[in-house]
Amino acid sequence: MADSPQPIEEMQEEDYALDRDVVTTLYDALDAEDPALVAEILEPMHPADIADLFEQIGSGRLRALLEIWTSDEVGAVLSELDEGLREEVIDALPKTVLADAVRDLESDDVVDLVEDLDAEQQSAILEVLEAPDRVAVEQSLQYPEYSAGRLMQRELVMTPEHWTVGQAIDHIRAEEDLPEQFYHIILVDPRMRPTAYVTLGRMLGARREVPLLDLTEDTFRTIPVTQPESDVAYAFNQYHLISAPVVDADDRLVGVITIDDAMVVLDEEHNEDILRLAGVGDESVSDTTWDITKQRFPWLGVNLLTAIIASLVISLFEDVISQVVALAVLMPIVASMGGNAGTQSLTVAVRAIATKDLTGSNAWRVLRREVMASTLNGAVFALIMGGVSLIWFGTPVLALVIAVAMVVNLAVAGFAGLLIPLALDKLGIDPALASGTFVTTVTDVVGFFVFLGFASMILL
Amino acid sequence: MADSPQPIEEMQEEDYALDRDVVTTLYDALDAEDPALVAEILEPMHPADIADLFEQIGSGRLRALLEIWTSDEVGAVLSELDEGLREEVIDALPKTVLADAVRDLESDDVVDLVEDLDAEQQSAILEVLEAPDRVAVEQSLQYPEYSAGRLMQRELVMTPEHWTVGQAIDHIRAEEDLPEQFYHIILVDPRMRPTAYVTLGRMLGARREVPLLDLTEDTFRTIPVTQPESDVAYAFNQYHLISAPVVDADDRLVGVITIDDAMVVLDEEHNEDILRLAGVGDESVSDTTWDITKQRFPWLGVNLLTAIIASLVISLFEDVISQVVALAVLMPIVASMGGNAGTQSLTVAVRAIATKDLTGSNAWRVLRREVMASTLNGAVFALIMGGVSLIWFGTPVLALVIAVAMVVNLAVAGFAGLLIPLALDKLGIDPALASGTFVTTVTDVVGFFVFLGFASMILL
Repeated sequence: MADSPQPIEEMQEEDYALDRDVVTTLYDALDAEDPALVAEILEPMHPADIADLFEQIGSGRLRALLEIWTSDEVGAVLSELDEGLREEVIDALPKTVLADAVRDLESDDVVDLVEDLDAEQQSAILEVLEAPDRVAVEQSLQYPEYSAGRLMQRELVMTPEHWTVGQAIDHIRAEEDLPEQFYHIILVDPRMRPTAYVTLGRMLGARREVPLLDLTEDTFRTIPVTQPESDVAYAFNQYHLISAPVVDADDRLVGVITIDDAMVVLDEEHNEDILRLAGVGDESVSDTTWDITKQRFPWLGVNLLTAIIASLVISLFEDVISQVVALAVLMPIVASMGGNAGTQSLTVAVRAIATKDLTGSNAWRVLRREVMASTLNGAVFALIMGGVSLIWFGTPVLALVIAVAMVVNLAVAGFAGLLIPLALDKLGIDPALASGTFVTTVTDVVGFFVFLGFASMILL
Repeated sequence: MADSPQPIEEMQEEDYALDRDVVTTLYDALDAEDPALVAEILEPMHPADIADLFEQIGSGRLRALLEIWTSDEVGAVLSELDEGLREEVIDALPKTVLADAVRDLESDDVVDLVEDLDAEQQSAILEVLEAPDRVAVEQSLQYPEYSAGRLMQRELVMTPEHWTVGQAIDHIRAEEDLPEQFYHIILVDPRMRPTAYVTLGRMLGARREVPLLDLTEDTFRTIPVTQPESDVAYAFNQYHLISAPVVDADDRLVGVITIDDAMVVLDEEHNEDILRLAGVGDESVSDTTWDITKQRFPWLGVNLLTAIIASLVISLFEDVISQVVALAVLMPIVASMGGNAGTQSLTVAVRAIATKDLTGSNAWRVLRREVMASTLNGAVFALIMGGVSLIWFGTPVLALVIAVAMVVNLAVAGFAGLLIPLALDKLGIDPALASGTFVTTVTDVVGFFVFLGFASMILL
């Protein structure tokens, strides 16, 4: 098996997807229980790619792999794993391997690793840390979940404001324990409040005697330690920050957040929004059938309730339907078009709220625009669908009924599609989570009611 | 007006949303045609926030503002604006203001600014650049749209591989025209191929005589200049890159991409995915009613077609509906549940494809899981809805019919929800764009067909 036809390093595809050959070779190595080949396959891979592999190979094979793979990359792979799978892997790992893995990590990575674990797993990991590291992690865990305090690293480089480039360079050279990554030097006043920062690039380009204060960046911004991480990600993206000092309630420096961590948050937030808009919880491909069945159930339950409400509306009009069956044929079209138009409006609204582009200042203007646009489209589709109905059923009255219902329902869709997310946001409910159900309930109910109600007025 | 009750700097809210007071004060200043107050309001704001303000205040006020606001921030604000509004602002700006604004920008920002403009606006901007800048921008525009070549900056710092820390520092000190931001020194071989990089932090922490090769980072990765920007963003996020050298087909260094630009791409890609899943094009809150009406029309048109197909299925069963009107009342429930379950599956699939978590290696396992999970949920909701129908209409046969249709349609929803995005992806079509329509067409057609078909078999 060791003389596989293709060098393993070349198996990674150009577009960063895991190559199927790598996976097949790994399966063979696991079936052959060949630790050397497993190590050879995983060794050139980035921990993030190994984590992806763990998420893809299924539970049985993963346990087989964890039994025969020992590497100093284990800690890094753990950091990259999806939360659900992480607990499973931590349980499966031998105690000693886990201890070594955790000791290799930076304090912010340990925080990220342990914060979602249950108490037992958490204390098992904290126990293996050395005292100062454990204290640092425990301090970070004091900050609220999803806050800047959880995201920041404590390792940073700071100098007094009045230092020169030369003093700062000598200080850095003398420092034994520099952060793994740092891009700025933070200037602090005598009370430890950050007042400015200097990029390493500008510092390197300046002469030794230049005061640091002459080199500071306009982009300087501090982050409150209790700020929600979604706002931190927003700030990094909006203001093109690379790193930002984190301050406590007294404006004193307590840590630093770098853009790579903010990017991970931005990615997670988006992912959550997309899934929530579809009525899916925090799911991943490594979840079991049972996990996803449970996660999706409540949302389908809510949908069943709203669908029953829509059906109750239909049942009000059983008389007219039994006389004109064409109404039953056409009514889903009105509801479907309303649902679609509503989903368009609400998605734009949810995004605009998330990016802070939709505010009290422009809500009325945007509402007017949404309602006008969906009414305009409603008018065009009323004409089209009126024509189609006339040809299909040859009844001008039916054509008129569906045309009127179409315009009304699309106008309502634009209205509800904007107002419902805004209202949910005001109430402190994530509009991505709940808007869809409310909006389609409105468009279903209005669609069926106007269509069938108008039909029974005219036809009965 | 100049003595407004609250200092303008404090008007920005903690959570980064534009404060309504700022907007109100600005409106007053515009109504009073008071350039000094306008300047006072905008001066403390970040260009990205000014751009957001431009997007929110509406077209008429924006023109008034552009007439009286002159600032050296104009170029930076232009870079931050949504594309749609950017063209409008460029047209509205006086020629001389525009020229000054563009000359202040870095070459990659100019590329970003001009790439989506029409030919006339593009050449108007290129004309005002000095010759070397113009050549650099024109060269970047040679690379395909949305490629690494368009994203990279040409300004970078590189050294021969064999240099020491001291040599590199002296080189940087001697360099007149350093990039605005740089975090790494790129080591190149004699043929200009990048072979490694060193972070400025590690370099600063080392003694002058240390060879740079002793300080290189494991994370080193080059980006091909033709790589799609979505893959670039993926690589930065997956591998926690801060900057990466960009190479041409001969592996020679041509530029560098930094994480802040990759983060912007990641944000845009996500935004596009969310909007596409809802059948909305690339929309923003600054678009006019007419813009969004046109953009949403095609998608509603596609939906109308699929709704008509579903109606055709219903019309096959007019007989049974006219005899048992309860079928018309209940049938939307089956379709709605199927549509929801399908949307759950397809959204998870679209995300997993985008994050490269769903591949040939695990597609069958994930498919089995999706179908099993949705069938399980289908079975539970079949029981619930069967019970509800029995109570509601008192007809056991009707309860049986809806229960069977529910299970079948939810199983199909899981199947179609995964396979349709995968198939579209294989065909090179963005699954976010088209999956929704296909999947709900399938669940509507199957839902109505199974429910009404089974009903007519039993009841007629």
